[in-house]
Amino acid sequence: MGFQYLAPPPFVHQSEAADPNDVKVSEWIQPWDGKEQADVGVIGIPLSRSSISASAASESPWAIRQSWRYFSAYDVDHDIDLTRLKVRDLGDIRMHTTDIPLCHRHIEKGIEEVYRTAAKCTSFLPVMIGGDHSITCPSVKAFVKAHPGRKVGLFQFDTHFDVRSLKSGGPSNGTPIRGLLESGMLRGQYIVQVGIHGFANSKIYRDYADEQGIIFYTMHQIRKQGFAQIFDESFARLSRKVDVIYVTVDLDVLDLSFLPGSPGSSPGGLYSWELFEALHLLGQKEQVKAFDMVCLDPSRDLGSLSVRTATHTFLSFLSGVCSRKN
Amino acid sequence: MGFQYLAPPPFVHQSEAADPNDVKVSEWIQPWDGKEQADVGVIGIPLSRSSISASAASESPWAIRQSWRYFSAYDVDHDIDLTRLKVRDLGDIRMHTTDIPLCHRHIEKGIEEVYRTAAKCTSFLPVMIGGDHSITCPSVKAFVKAHPGRKVGLFQFDTHFDVRSLKSGGPSNGTPIRGLLESGMLRGQYIVQVGIHGFANSKIYRDYADEQGIIFYTMHQIRKQGFAQIFDESFARLSRKVDVIYVTVDLDVLDLSFLPGSPGSSPGGLYSWELFEALHLLGQKEQVKAFDMVCLDPSRDLGSLSVRTATHTFLSFLSGVCSRKN
Amino acid sequence: MGFQYLAPPPFVHQSEAADPNDVKVSEWIQPWDGKEQADVGVIGIPLSRSSISASAASESPWAIRQSWRYFSAYDVDHDIDLTRLKVRDLGDIRMHTTDIPLCHRHIEKGIEEVYRTAAKCTSFLPVMIGGDHSITCPSVKAFVKAHPGRKVGLFQFDTHFDVRSLKSGGPSNGTPIRGLLESGMLRGQYIVQVGIHGFANSKIYRDYADEQGIIFYTMHQIRKQGFAQIFDESFARLSRKVDVIYVTVDLDVLDLSFLPGSPGSSPGGLYSWELFEALHLLGQKEQVKAFDMVCLDPSRDLGSLSVRTATHTFLSFLSGVCSRKN
Amino acid sequence: MGFQYLAPPPFVHQSEAADPNDVKVSEWIQPWDGKEQADVGVIGIPLSRSSISASAASESPWAIRQSWRYFSAYDVDHDIDLTRLKVRDLGDIRMHTTDIPLCHRHIEKGIEEVYRTAAKCTSFLPVMIGGDHSITCPSVKAFVKAHPGRKVGLFQFDTHFDVRSLKSGGPSNGTPIRGLLESGMLRGQYIVQVGIHGFANSKIYRDYADEQGIIFYTMHQIRKQGFAQIFDESFARLSRKVDVIYVTVDLDVLDLSFLPGSPGSSPGGLYSWELFEALHLLGQKEQVKAFDMVCLDPSRDLGSLSVRTATHTFLSFLSGVCSRKN
Amino acid sequence: MGFQYLAPPPFVHQSEAADPNDVKVSEWIQPWDGKEQADVGVIGIPLSRSSISASAASESPWAIRQSWRYFSAYDVDHDIDLTRLKVRDLGDIRMHTTDIPLCHRHIEKGIEEVYRTAAKCTSFLPVMIGGDHSITCPSVKAFVKAHPGRKVGLFQFDTHFDVRSLKSGGPSNGTPIRGLLESGMLRGQYIVQVGIHGFANSKIYRDYADEQGIIFYTMHQIRKQGFAQIFDESFARLSRKVDVIYVTVDLDVLDLSFLPGSPGSSPGGLYSWELFEALHLLGQKEQVKAFDMVCLDPSRDLGSLSVRTATHTFLSFLSGVCSRKN
Amino acid sequence: MGFQYLAPPPFVHQSEAADPNDVKVSEWIQPWDGKEQADVGVIGIPLSRSSISASAASESPWAIRQSWRYFSAYDVDHDIDLTRLKVRDLGDIRMHTTDIPLCHRHIEKGIEEVYRTAAKCTSFLPVMIGGDHSITCPSVKAFVKAHPGRKVGLFQFDTHFDVRSLKSGGPSNGTPIRGLLESGMLRGQYIVQVGIHGFANSKIYRDYADEQGIIFYTMHQIRKQGFAQIFDESFARLSRKVDVIYVTVDLDVLDLSFLPGSPGSSPGGLYSWELFEALHLLGQKEQVKAFDMVCLDPSRDLGSLSVRTATHTFLSFLSGVCSRKN
Repeated sequence: MGFQYLAPPPFVHQSEAADPNDVKVSEWIQPWDGKEQADVGVIGIPLSRSSISASAASESPWAIRQSWRYFSAYDVDHDIDLTRLKVRDLGDIRMHTTDIPLCHRHIEKGIEEVYRTAAKCTSFLPVMIGGDHSITCPSVKAFVKAHPGRKVGLFQFDTHFDVRSLKSGGPSNGTPIRGLLESGMLRGQYIVQVGIHGFANSKIYRDYADEQGIIFYTMHQIRKQGFAQIFDESFARLSRKVDVIYVTVDLDVLDLSFLPGSPGSSPGGLYSWELFEALHLLGQKEQVKAFDMVCLDPSRDLGSLSVRTATHTFLSFLSGVCSRKN
Repeated sequence: MGFQYLAPPPFVHQSEAADPNDVKVSEWIQPWDGKEQADVGVIGIPLSRSSISASAASESPWAIRQSWRYFSAYDVDHDIDLTRLKVRDLGDIRMHTTDIPLCHRHIEKGIEEVYRTAAKCTSFLPVMIGGDHSITCPSVKAFVKAHPGRKVGLFQFDTHFDVRSLKSGGPSNGTPIRGLLESGMLRGQYIVQVGIHGFANSKIYRDYADEQGIIFYTMHQIRKQGFAQIFDESFARLSRKVDVIYVTVDLDVLDLSFLPGSPGSSPGGLYSWELFEALHLLGQKEQVKAFDMVCLDPSRDLGSLSVRTATHTFLSFLSGVCSRKN
Repeated sequence: MGFQYLAPPPFVHQSEAADPNDVKVSEWIQPWDGKEQADVGVIGIPLSRSSISASAASESPWAIRQSWRYFSAYDVDHDIDLTRLKVRDLGDIRMHTTDIPLCHRHIEKGIEEVYRTAAKCTSFLPVMIGGDHSITCPSVKAFVKAHPGRKVGLFQFDTHFDVRSLKSGGPSNGTPIRGLLESGMLRGQYIVQVGIHGFANSKIYRDYADEQGIIFYTMHQIRKQGFAQIFDESFARLSRKVDVIYVTVDLDVLDLSFLPGSPGSSPGGLYSWELFEALHLLGQKEQVKAFDMVCLDPSRDLGSLSVRTATHTFLSFLSGVCSRKN
Repeated sequence: MGFQYLAPPPFVHQSEAADPNDVKVSEWIQPWDGKEQADVGVIGIPLSRSSISASAASESPWAIRQSWRYFSAYDVDHDIDLTRLKVRDLGDIRMHTTDIPLCHRHIEKGIEEVYRTAAKCTSFLPVMIGGDHSITCPSVKAFVKAHPGRKVGLFQFDTHFDVRSLKSGGPSNGTPIRGLLESGMLRGQYIVQVGIHGFANSKIYRDYADEQGIIFYTMHQIRKQGFAQIFDESFARLSRKVDVIYVTVDLDVLDLSFLPGSPGSSPGGLYSWELFEALHLLGQKEQVKAFDMVCLDPSRDLGSLSVRTATHTFLSFLSGVCSRKN
Repeated sequence: MGFQYLAPPPFVHQSEAADPNDVKVSEWIQPWDGKEQADVGVIGIPLSRSSISASAASESPWAIRQSWRYFSAYDVDHDIDLTRLKVRDLGDIRMHTTDIPLCHRHIEKGIEEVYRTAAKCTSFLPVMIGGDHSITCPSVKAFVKAHPGRKVGLFQFDTHFDVRSLKSGGPSNGTPIRGLLESGMLRGQYIVQVGIHGFANSKIYRDYADEQGIIFYTMHQIRKQGFAQIFDESFARLSRKVDVIYVTVDLDVLDLSFLPGSPGSSPGGLYSWELFEALHLLGQKEQVKAFDMVCLDPSRDLGSLSVRTATHTFLSFLSGVCSRKN
Repeated sequence: MGFQYLAPPPFVHQSEAADPNDVKVSEWIQPWDGKEQADVGVIGIPLSRSSISASAASESPWAIRQSWRYFSAYDVDHDIDLTRLKVRDLGDIRMHTTDIPLCHRHIEKGIEEVYRTAAKCTSFLPVMIGGDHSITCPSVKAFVKAHPGRKVGLFQFDTHFDVRSLKSGGPSNGTPIRGLLESGMLRGQYIVQVGIHGFANSKIYRDYADEQGIIFYTMHQIRKQGFAQIFDESFARLSRKVDVIYVTVDLDVLDLSFLPGSPGSSPGGLYSWELFEALHLLGQKEQVKAFDMVCLDPSRDLGSLSVRTATHTFLSFLSGVCSRKN
């Protein structure tokens, strides 16, 4: 395809029991030829050397793609035929074996390259599969540059604030929001965080979030008022203030029993159904222009529980996007 | 016991810490002597060579029986003493090592044999433990023949429509409903399916289900309106049209986090409590005359989570049946 | 520290990625010097030779302490900074390799020793980490002796009644409540049990519980009326009758999918969020003067799901206690 | 490629860290275009529905191919550059989902088709990757037909005699040698079995093997006299009697600690190094004209131990074949 | 059967694919009727509460019996048909849930009871399956009493000396030899230990063994001189001094890669083949009059590696005993 | 201790069943106070971000230290009391979260710092626990600088040559030997590699090793001539040419069945006993002045097999060093 910063997508295996009456996601999402009009572009970002503890989240883009064969490209829950949406696989951002800052620059430049290439598409929405949460910082930077003059909002599902100081340890999976705020790329008031949870954050970071004007909702609020209501309120508060929205999902927002394969998941988190429905609704919103999903470490999975949950999250978003086309 | 198509039941281990004040299910359910009046007969159907992908669901009847020692024969939730119900183990349908069509004929003939033998019981309800879902086709055929002149309904918990074409691959775990419809044994309008879920079915099969008049409820409907309401509505719609009902539970209707041991389970499925309560209610209904439970592959279990959940489902149904006796 | 029956606490590892802005529980909870005023004392009780089936619940105090490094000492859900509470680790009750009755005597005497030592603290609340449920019998005995002339109540989360007869097998993890009733230390009317569940108890034990006047709530009641309402009602009924309350949590009250690491957990149990919120509320109550948590076997865990859920339960209680200080 | 009975080979992943100086097996073995002169053709036979107990050996061709990326195409032990050998992947024999006898016919016809197609190659050696041992019966039948007028010998590594009667259960993984003898395709005197082991065979089958004139060597003989000597002797005895030799390796001949992923492996079996060296030597022999390797069930593996050991066995044979070219 | 201290043997499952031409061990070893002449009696001793660290070795008698279905009652390596030996299962010594000293008394009395009952058998050899190594102390005491006036020798395979002081922790799995020496039941010169290994023993215990005159062989000696030679020498030294010999195998003598399911196994231990051959030879010796096998914890197994290795050890001994009958 | 580049050692847990007569390695090896004369210093190097594929070898120093409690400080095989050797734990080289080249500089400077500090010790031998093999390059650089004017030899156990080009991916676990040769720190003729194995290396790298004059021995040579002979020959060839020797053990030299926890281990490798004996002998040699052990990834372990094997390797070396003291 000729991207400088992206390697072509890996081969994706097809279902071992092909059924012509049942199009699988692995048959539907094809490599992009770099020319055709595409609605959505999938970009793998296999970086997890930047994680605070040893992580194989770098294997996540591969694992999620290989699980596509187990899912149909039809959402019977909302009666949406996803094959109407042209989704193309753009491949993985090229990583260096040992130079992490270079990796972060590659991510920013690689996504900029995608935006340039996709500029000719009437509407193009990139979906980034991490990797750890450190990738969101360069990815949002590229997003902001691609939307000059627009007010950019961030809608984040996360157990953590992710505002750890950059001074100790450099840009890691604990720092993406701090990195965006400190670089001036994003304003705190334009950030909404849903799923912040007890015993996974410090008071100092909460105070920092408050100072910066970040709007956040804890699991306690979610369980008291109900997820649907909190979600509607949180999206409404963000959408009225900004022009375009970047959605980032740290999968550790899910309860540890639904997503054992993320070191950050904690007991008492979101149920997978709640996340699926929220992503479907976000996919429907015209303001939402980019989506990333991070911090799944397939090597820690139990059976295929975490990987399949991540893929279902990804498909729920695409199903929402598809419904924009009517 | 003298059945031609059934091998005697395997030995079932007793609790290692027998307590005379606490009758375990393994002590309560005894092998049938073929003569006594029994209320319920348990029949194992250890077939999974017919599964589309490699499966050891054939070990499920054995695994579920061995887990009986961990459960008491008393349902404190509904204050029901299950030992009042005479449940007998009829053993397993004999399978051939390499001839799958012969296995399916054995299932149909074996269950017919059971119905003939049980005809002398004033009321007898068979419970079939699969095996994969392909067993439901011959089992329902035997059921229909045993209820001549009655309108037969099927109440199905399933993530999938199970209406895959019989032409590719023959009768497998993807085809039981298609097989019943095409053989004329069952009418689409007399089938209710609960738990149909996104990214696990194709539009073509949904359209086929619609054409056939199958009544189905998706997980989205269940989560929007609440499971209890959907269940009541779905049962009401079926019960008023038919005379007798066969209940089939594909355990993959459960959320993957509650039932990791089924390759078909998906994220966003039913919670186990919902299934337990529904089975308890179905067990209470006089119209319900047979029950099967399929597609648990014990070799994929995590700990004993899936096997214990399957056994709890089975007991919830029996607890409901027991309450008919008052 | 000079306790006779307690060994000093084991070393607790700190987070591998220390962040001065985020105090971890492992940094906050320090060994007690035996002199300072402490609000809460943590006592490990590593006994599981007394379990009916082979168990490594004796490794639970160690496993839970080591998991502290993964949790922050701040509860963002309720905006409570736990470091305001002085929690100290008193170590583990010394166990004998082969003499189980001696172990039970050590528990009783060890906790008495703690109460004596702590008498000088203006308010001191012990938290016991088992071990199996047999430890609750000697622990409550010591509690009763430490509150002479007060009416003592027991608030218990459990799947089981735990009233197995002491005659077969001696005092084990199935007998603690029976042991307390038979020794006259506790009256049945002062015991509340929440989470009693089907197929895990016998009718004889239910009848015994009724005779003794134990107030219990089943999972069926909880799912029908909602956990919050049942919890409020159950606590109200107990609190108006007694002066001081001992809270005991058998972790098997949790659904098997949330706590696979306890042999007693069953499908259809409590969700972890419900338990967390209840413990937070119990922690707030002035009447609550002691807390134990038992029956986690870390060797049966899947990933770290069960251990982390247990630690979160423990922290939810402490967060509630901390809010008493305002 | 236009084979009737073979599906094209699956995509084989390349090493994630490609190094131009280190050609991996996954880069060296390419799909066959059906025309070029090839030295060796790899044929997958994904059948294990024919196994006596539930097996996923059908996933073995896929698992072994995917492990190719972890192995270099250079044998430093014997200084052999395997890329000098043209090895091509012919794909997998097409299987039916439910008709096992049809699968066995497909294997026989599929391999016949390969022999016909390969007739134009000056020298062509097929390597079959099972599946379970039932595949060896149709495969050897096709081999015999492809070598008319030649005396055909079978060199077998196996823990078992594999001469179970065909009457109970039909042709399964316990019957391949019996099937070949009874069909008259092979004479007992032309069969050598190495690795026969205690407590894994019956006296009746040993007597049958003796009657048929099968030459076999037990593990006891191997450990007393040394493997190298037994191997030399066994090969010499066979090679002087026959014209061409088919080598079949039931991987359960390996000690359970080296190959946990085969239900038939037993303690006290061959060490992997012994098998590797023997296969290298067999590969060198001009009389050896075909090779199959069976009974690895990847779903039972511990880590990747069994799959990697199987792949190493396969490469050891090819390394021997490569040395014929000098 | 009427033993006071033994519970009847548990049901043993038969092979799921019964073959009349292949008698499995599970078919051969039957429960004893207490009257018939038997050659060998199997006695389970399910005690591991006495282990220093948490252990489920108590599940070993059950696990080993259930694995019998996977083994044939024919030893093709030595051409011995084991069914000629009458082996009967006497059941398990009854254990108390919480009273460990009582368990040890039960073992001693239970085995005495067996010796009395078996006195009428012309030749009777008991085989004890532990449990942990603490069971060997009461078992040898009963053995000594059953052979009055005879010089009793102990042939032990073990990584450890097992001479830990009884003062700390009472009689545990670290003390059986010390217990026998201190009770005067056995003299040090009549004890041979094979497999003693580095970093698993202390100098003090080695000095104690030397003082007591225990003859021991380290793994270093075994690897330098060869196992066969060491074995012959060690047996010769013992057999010339004593009249009758009790063989005890602590399975932790095996290398950790062959027996992962014992906490005491260490790297650098015996290979399973060596142990099998030694046990076969010991079985042949007329002086050998009893055999026990301990310290397998099935809950720590990887796949079925450890359990199958233990069963193979057990069968190797019986195969040797069988050859005495000629 | 005041090292700039080293963090103090982590706390090491003691045996849960302390026995005053059996000193455990965890009691013997104490943190260094930076002043006392020590014989051996242990240095952890927790770096594995530099691995080609995702690795948690960074957890190896921690895992190995924690396993010390399971080993006694006495080598009964060679009758050596290790406590006579003063071994001190110097802690771990400090790593940066995201800057890998900085990590490599820290290793070099940190070990230089150790050599400077230790200069006052009459004889001091550092033992480095990786991390991945990339750490050997900076570690040997520091070693060379600490031995000015001496001819430095490298004795390496490894499956691989480790001479991958530095150009692709920078200094990783595939490049340490190349890095040393290209930097001129080491001459090829002064390098001996034992254990080089088939299908794990390329011809190009073999040719490079030959050109550089590296002396290497393959597994084939080892199995043909016997390990003991190869080891003696290889050491003799190196020792006569150089003054001082650095020993590096890539644990992937071990057979995959003995060390499943290293991604580089392959079937057909060394047996653990061979490595233990070789390390014991190397420890005895006065020329040997440093030792590192790398590429164990504890997160891939099966049970504790790999970690315990690594610790046993480490202790075998120290036992050899201890024997120098006589």
